[in-house]
Amino acid sequence: MRIATSVVAALVVGLAGTTAAQVKPEKLIEYRQDAMGVIGFNFSQMGAQVKGDIPYNKDVFAQRAATVEFASKLPMEGFVPGTEKGHDTKAKAEVWAKIDDFKAKMEKMQTEAAKLAAIAKTGTQDEIKKQFGATAGACKACHDDYRAK
Amino acid sequence: MRIATSVVAALVVGLAGTTAAQVKPEKLIEYRQDAMGVIGFNFSQMGAQVKGDIPYNKDVFAQRAATVEFASKLPMEGFVPGTEKGHDTKAKAEVWAKIDDFKAKMEKMQTEAAKLAAIAKTGTQDEIKKQFGATAGACKACHDDYRAK
Repeated sequence: MRIATSVVAALVVGLAGTTAAQVKPEKLIEYRQDAMGVIGFNFSQMGAQVKGDIPYNKDVFAQRAATVEFASKLPMEGFVPGTEKGHDTKAKAEVWAKIDDFKAKMEKMQTEAAKLAAIAKTGTQDEIKKQFGATAGACKACHDDYRAK
Repeated sequence: MRIATSVVAALVVGLAGTTAAQVKPEKLIEYRQDAMGVIGFNFSQMGAQVKGDIPYNKDVFAQRAATVEFASKLPMEGFVPGTEKGHDTKAKAEVWAKIDDFKAKMEKMQTEAAKLAAIAKTGTQDEIKKQFGATAGACKACHDDYRAK
């Protein structure tokens, strides 16, 4: 699907409530992938601690959880209509066909990530592990429905 | 250059003061690229406001500046020895040959980005533009020396 750049820009304004420059769809796809990559790297490193592959370090874990919380707010800006194709996106067409559900699942992930960042600072190791699982579940729920294998 | 994964992990611990899992060099290169991508997208959108390509919106600008400040702290973790090659990295060998200067320039960028995020919330438009220029200069100084064209 080809779409005029100006149309994409207008849609960015509408969706994210921001004022984006004339952004090429490729740039928006790349941006959401970069933001997801930041989330994924830090999440996998937290997972290594949870699984015991590396020693548990509360400060490092909390720092990674804070990074995931912050980055969790970023990808949605890149999922505007007009960005369905290109840059090897794994996003399924269902993202835009069921955009309300997609947004709800993204928000669920953001909520769980925020809880994880909070608990990582003050919680017990068991509480942290439990909330890590809840956050991972929120990631997976969205990936299962909306990301191609 | 090939280097054992466990060695890279040990170096990650040393450099970033964190406890990383056995991270493959490719993953670290990808991570620093993702973090730089998040910085770049938001920075270019701020630039569009500064240049007048899109209307100046103080709240959006401040949000992007806060994102750049946060993301500015991330890439260094990915620049450990053992990650000189792979994943189409544009990092020059000089990064590791002159690691102290590279780190100093990265820290200069972080400092300028933090100033920009602060001024973006409370400063005048002229003050914001001036600090945007200072931050852009800090990015460029490092790119000029350490990133291949």
